[in-house]
Amino acid sequence: MGNRFLVVGGDAAGMSAAGKALRDDPDREVVVFEQGEWVAYGACGLPYYEAGVVDDLSDLVVVDPAEIEARGIDLRRGHDVVDVDADARTVTVAAADGRYEAAYDDLLLATGGRATFPDVPGADLAGAFAVRNLAAGRALHNYVVPEERPPVAAVEAGYGAALRRHLATARPAVAGVIGANKIGLEMAEAFLARGLDVHVFESGSQVLPAFGAAAAGVVADHLREQGVTLHLDATVEALAGTGGRVAAVETDVGRVPVDVVLVDVGIEPNVDLAQAAGAALGETGAVAVDEYGETSVPHVYAAGDCAEKHHLLADGPVRWPYALAANRAGRAIGATVAGDPTPVGSIVGTGVMKTFDLEVARTGLLDAEARTAGFDPVSKTITTITRAHYYPGWSRIVVHAVCDRTTGRFLGASLVGREGAAHRINSVAGPLHAGMTVDEVGALDFGYAPPFGPVWDPVLAAARALSGDLS
Amino acid sequence: MGNRFLVVGGDAAGMSAAGKALRDDPDREVVVFEQGEWVAYGACGLPYYEAGVVDDLSDLVVVDPAEIEARGIDLRRGHDVVDVDADARTVTVAAADGRYEAAYDDLLLATGGRATFPDVPGADLAGAFAVRNLAAGRALHNYVVPEERPPVAAVEAGYGAALRRHLATARPAVAGVIGANKIGLEMAEAFLARGLDVHVFESGSQVLPAFGAAAAGVVADHLREQGVTLHLDATVEALAGTGGRVAAVETDVGRVPVDVVLVDVGIEPNVDLAQAAGAALGETGAVAVDEYGETSVPHVYAAGDCAEKHHLLADGPVRWPYALAANRAGRAIGATVAGDPTPVGSIVGTGVMKTFDLEVARTGLLDAEARTAGFDPVSKTITTITRAHYYPGWSRIVVHAVCDRTTGRFLGASLVGREGAAHRINSVAGPLHAGMTVDEVGALDFGYAPPFGPVWDPVLAAARALSGDLS
Repeated sequence: MGNRFLVVGGDAAGMSAAGKALRDDPDREVVVFEQGEWVAYGACGLPYYEAGVVDDLSDLVVVDPAEIEARGIDLRRGHDVVDVDADARTVTVAAADGRYEAAYDDLLLATGGRATFPDVPGADLAGAFAVRNLAAGRALHNYVVPEERPPVAAVEAGYGAALRRHLATARPAVAGVIGANKIGLEMAEAFLARGLDVHVFESGSQVLPAFGAAAAGVVADHLREQGVTLHLDATVEALAGTGGRVAAVETDVGRVPVDVVLVDVGIEPNVDLAQAAGAALGETGAVAVDEYGETSVPHVYAAGDCAEKHHLLADGPVRWPYALAANRAGRAIGATVAGDPTPVGSIVGTGVMKTFDLEVARTGLLDAEARTAGFDPVSKTITTITRAHYYPGWSRIVVHAVCDRTTGRFLGASLVGREGAAHRINSVAGPLHAGMTVDEVGALDFGYAPPFGPVWDPVLAAARALSGDLS
Repeated sequence: MGNRFLVVGGDAAGMSAAGKALRDDPDREVVVFEQGEWVAYGACGLPYYEAGVVDDLSDLVVVDPAEIEARGIDLRRGHDVVDVDADARTVTVAAADGRYEAAYDDLLLATGGRATFPDVPGADLAGAFAVRNLAAGRALHNYVVPEERPPVAAVEAGYGAALRRHLATARPAVAGVIGANKIGLEMAEAFLARGLDVHVFESGSQVLPAFGAAAAGVVADHLREQGVTLHLDATVEALAGTGGRVAAVETDVGRVPVDVVLVDVGIEPNVDLAQAAGAALGETGAVAVDEYGETSVPHVYAAGDCAEKHHLLADGPVRWPYALAANRAGRAIGATVAGDPTPVGSIVGTGVMKTFDLEVARTGLLDAEARTAGFDPVSKTITTITRAHYYPGWSRIVVHAVCDRTTGRFLGASLVGREGAAHRINSVAGPLHAGMTVDEVGALDFGYAPPFGPVWDPVLAAARALSGDLS
């Protein structure tokens, strides 16, 4: 294995790989190309920036560029890798001062994904946003809260008061969120915190489809209580505009005037560069990789949102654009490149989120997913409490558990409640990795103390109830 | 198998067994003998009753007697089983109106445990308490907060004001807690909440010895910050009294005046009845049972704090007086007796507690325990954060992870922090049941969202760090 490791993309997967390769082999030459300005950031924090609980965009940066460079990584921001020649083992880079070629011994494509935008009239209007990176997050924020815009030339030239009045007038009052998914609901909360009215449009019949039906009802009720207007079974057909700015969302069931739109209907993997390198895409449309994250082209790796992940229970490839999987794959590839072959690992499908006062969580295969994967799922939903019944402050928690009817294998779970749902889901992740049955899960030795749950933890109680239905 | 199931002891194990047997076989005759007044209660809640966050002792009752009887259980409170004749399959019961014999086909001894009391002069003074049941909790409370005593005859006879003045004068101002263990620290918090000064005496060099050294330092600092006076390496040699009431704790390093004493130095299993039945005790001193909870005497079962549990990692018997293990064993025995042989299961040693603003948790075998069990433990302690670094309100969390040097098998963990320690420990329990290695634990697919943790969950980060030390 040669000495030069090039990484395309300076976020979770890319920076994890670069850092690990250099830690394991300090003599290695590691170059990271990032087309944008920001590297090593937590895009997951954008809703909290928008809500104002995170003050500054730069707070979302995990490691700053100076520190990255001090670690010995050759970090090149504003350098856009536009082509790969896998035979010659070179990449073509476009930078401000022109194009150049760079040779590699190993190459990691960590090119991420981009938000799917609805293919409807008006989608290109000003004020319609999707947020996948910090630059987009800043643009959205400047649109929603224009008076917080940094001083512009006009202000400095003496037009300050008039311009500020104009901007204040232009401040959006109503937000439309297209897609009742994780980021969409987090942004809905942020918009509400900013004083906007919020309308959420979802083409399906439930919010948070990825979290299953059992959680959706609880979440929908909660969103309405918080003042969010939900439009379920509403397909967006167009965005209407005034003066080039978005002014309404038009759906098959009606028209809602809005001043700003946030889209969260999916993520498309950025695969152009992988295709240029000749790497095969998988059935999901993302880059196919082997257990070490290597593509069909030797010495070309892919990780993060552009690459497929292996789902342990479905035993097949999936798209799973989440930070931990990206970090883990990047880190494993860094180790592999540095001489210690390390599998990128599998996912079991664990996801958590906070929406207003609720924690929502899922893992494994929920009913429909289990059926698609070839199981014969049987499931059970229970409602129990988050603390001992006599301990002040308890609230209800809903647990949905799924297992295979024939083998009893535990397949998945979802939880929703005001506390204790997010961390509890991880107690199910290990058993899923281990292939435990529902009886085995019900017999796990979990901790108990009155402030933290009933004697039978909600997960154990759900497994026990599901097991009872089987026998 | 015959039809008559007698249960001795009406708390966790006993009531779980009785309920399950009758649910599975409604024709079964199920009798529960309880020597005291209370059944099916959560003794774990006593510290919260003492602290005043639980108003009424009866709030700690999980199922009330009328409901138990409505389910078809023949519940006999104030009935003390004093002997067993295993050949004749009868028990001797002492009740208010005399003794009687009762025949059984299956017998469960769920006689619980009693607090170990230090064998020192003055241990029999008034004002020295250990709490293992609601009656003891009430006695302690009436001693600490005498003005809340229920009206007595003297009050009703017109001596009210004078008596109340006397009682108020007698209200304890300083509490001594002997043993820095779970209940002791919970009671220390309760005493402080009641306005008492609190001194904790611990013969060892750390608080919470069961939770390991990594957690102990954090907890000790926190206790001191809260105003608890800790006396570590202090062996209690005597309790001194005035007028028959406890007045001081005398240790090998000094004398501390106190008005009330709470002892939490261990629990002794109540094995008299098992011995009367001819059932063998195990090496731990508790009743030995097989995987179905049956003692060495056929048709005589034992469960709860009087019986041994099987520790999966130590692969041997232990005493483990915790509610979940008692409930699970009782339930399994109920199923077995009703015709569906069900193992009582194993424990992996998961325990959690809250002390003031800290959550403390442990599972598996910590360093010394692992060594005793024949492993070659290697461990690592890390400090990380409970939320994404940019998410408001994060705090530090300490994770200690232990694995076997030779095999890499994950052996145990402890956590301590202001949030996210209690539920997180359960994410380790499943992997311990499954026998995972430290590498496998580090590669688990846990959930991530900024309000709930960093991208690498603290447990994953600790496993990863420990794994790095191994290679």
